[in-house]
Amino acid sequence: MLSVLWRGEDAIPGSPETVRMLRAMGKQPVFLTNYSILSRKELMEKFTHLGYDVREEEIYSSATLAGLYLQSHLQTDETVFVLGSQGLHDEIESFGVKVAPLDSEDHVFDIQSLTETLKIDPKIGAVVVAFDINFNYRKLLRAANILSKESTHFLVTNEDPRLPSNDGWIVPDCGCLIEAVIKATKRTPTVLGKPNKFAWDFISKRFHVNPERTIMIGDSLNTDILFGYNCGIRRSLVLSGISSYADVTNRIDEVKHHPNAEKWIPNYYIQSLGTIAKCLWRLGLYEPDPDGDVCSDSASDETIEDRVDPWVSQPGTSPANGICHRKEVITTV
Amino acid sequence: MLSVLWRGEDAIPGSPETVRMLRAMGKQPVFLTNYSILSRKELMEKFTHLGYDVREEEIYSSATLAGLYLQSHLQTDETVFVLGSQGLHDEIESFGVKVAPLDSEDHVFDIQSLTETLKIDPKIGAVVVAFDINFNYRKLLRAANILSKESTHFLVTNEDPRLPSNDGWIVPDCGCLIEAVIKATKRTPTVLGKPNKFAWDFISKRFHVNPERTIMIGDSLNTDILFGYNCGIRRSLVLSGISSYADVTNRIDEVKHHPNAEKWIPNYYIQSLGTIAKCLWRLGLYEPDPDGDVCSDSASDETIEDRVDPWVSQPGTSPANGICHRKEVITTV
Repeated sequence: MLSVLWRGEDAIPGSPETVRMLRAMGKQPVFLTNYSILSRKELMEKFTHLGYDVREEEIYSSATLAGLYLQSHLQTDETVFVLGSQGLHDEIESFGVKVAPLDSEDHVFDIQSLTETLKIDPKIGAVVVAFDINFNYRKLLRAANILSKESTHFLVTNEDPRLPSNDGWIVPDCGCLIEAVIKATKRTPTVLGKPNKFAWDFISKRFHVNPERTIMIGDSLNTDILFGYNCGIRRSLVLSGISSYADVTNRIDEVKHHPNAEKWIPNYYIQSLGTIAKCLWRLGLYEPDPDGDVCSDSASDETIEDRVDPWVSQPGTSPANGICHRKEVITTV
Repeated sequence: MLSVLWRGEDAIPGSPETVRMLRAMGKQPVFLTNYSILSRKELMEKFTHLGYDVREEEIYSSATLAGLYLQSHLQTDETVFVLGSQGLHDEIESFGVKVAPLDSEDHVFDIQSLTETLKIDPKIGAVVVAFDINFNYRKLLRAANILSKESTHFLVTNEDPRLPSNDGWIVPDCGCLIEAVIKATKRTPTVLGKPNKFAWDFISKRFHVNPERTIMIGDSLNTDILFGYNCGIRRSLVLSGISSYADVTNRIDEVKHHPNAEKWIPNYYIQSLGTIAKCLWRLGLYEPDPDGDVCSDSASDETIEDRVDPWVSQPGTSPANGICHRKEVITTV
């Protein structure tokens, strides 16, 4: 949800208002994130703390997707070996799936004693690799040997190489750790997170989504916009996060020579999610809460066209219609 | 040295005799291994314990190569951050290069406290990634951030995905760990070990090697035989380790369609290093030590041709000549 809904410990201004407005207009928001570190319960606490009106069943993190996948693919007595956070453990267990206990994490100093003490529970039916701050060699060793049984499911929450970082540090994400497991096992994992459309199957069934009336809003061309393309829905980039205006124009240049680059080009872009609230208010489509700070920001003299532009102008469709007149809205990291 | 010179705690029969014979005939053996876990001092103890007549300066492990590289590339006040064993640390320090101390390895549970406590010593001029049984997320994080300075050297000892294992376990090697660092940094490392010909530059100078009179003997097509090809020297596969007779015939079939596969085809193959001792003895080229168990193994009725075959028969060159009449012999993992 980072860079669309919040940054660090603060909501991005206007985003909570936009979610409230859309819901009041009868739109169904769904929140989709590759973030696997917190359980939905923990995410709900964060949403509430930041003033968002969100229901737990509207949140689909890659941890949630792992739980959903395992719930439908494991036998009742099978367990899962998890390289990931406590939040991911909790989320998976909330789907009634048992997580295999970790080995002792004591340091070991030679290979022989490492493999001598290695025991693989034959009941383990899946391995999930996620961002894991406690990732270590012993976990890699266990995962590789569990996965040597071809029938064991190999799931990864997301392929992002780095987590977003406010302070300039490189923070390796799940995408780095899975490379080690792939190299050791020579196996190809099932990727649960965006841009894989795996989540779409669950969401579209659960919310009876009409793709024609759904938009994917996200801050990353490589994950969010590509996800929207893969699902066959419209997509809007918010410029408050990873991808910039220049990234989009680069893709537009690229498409002349490589038509495939089309996949990364959003239908629309907006400055931030709060722009939607502003547009709705100015168009008179929604009467804001008097406390909504963004909508009362009348000092700004920007026009809708400054902020909301369709990449491809469509006759008879104004940008505001393009963004707002949809039944469902998916907003995301 | 595994699978050519020893397996587990035992020398491969005939190998110590072969090394002694070759040395007595005036050949210069050099021992080259991608193994980085033990220092040369520790390797020497193992060689001696198993009855090998070897000198420390004849051993080139990937740890030795790291020491040699760093000795010539770092400024005098620069240090190196090492993901690897104590043996690798010791080996690098034996070249007068200072290893940067590790951080506290305490478990950490959130990204913020991880990066808040992260300090990168600006004196670190290189990162070496090797097989590291204590590899963990914190080390990956440090390595990635040290390497964000483009001028920092990025070295890896070897790219092998797995260590050989006697008991059937998959034991992920350095090749798995470097994938994680590469993904996080988007940088391409300098590979010190085979099949990269990096070691050749040191060895050929140190021993005034004539490539025409040198043979590479090893058990792996992907590392040893390709290394020999890259160095422009003859190569012989021993069948006591990783690659099999079938692997070679597969490459020979492949070369019809992909001439590039030539690189992986050895000039000769032998059952094990001990075969050389047998051949020399039977040809009357060397009088063995009466204790040499292999050469007195007259119960076997195999002929030289059963065991020593040139892949390409060359007029006027017998297989035995092809293997034995060279000045230098490099034997290896």
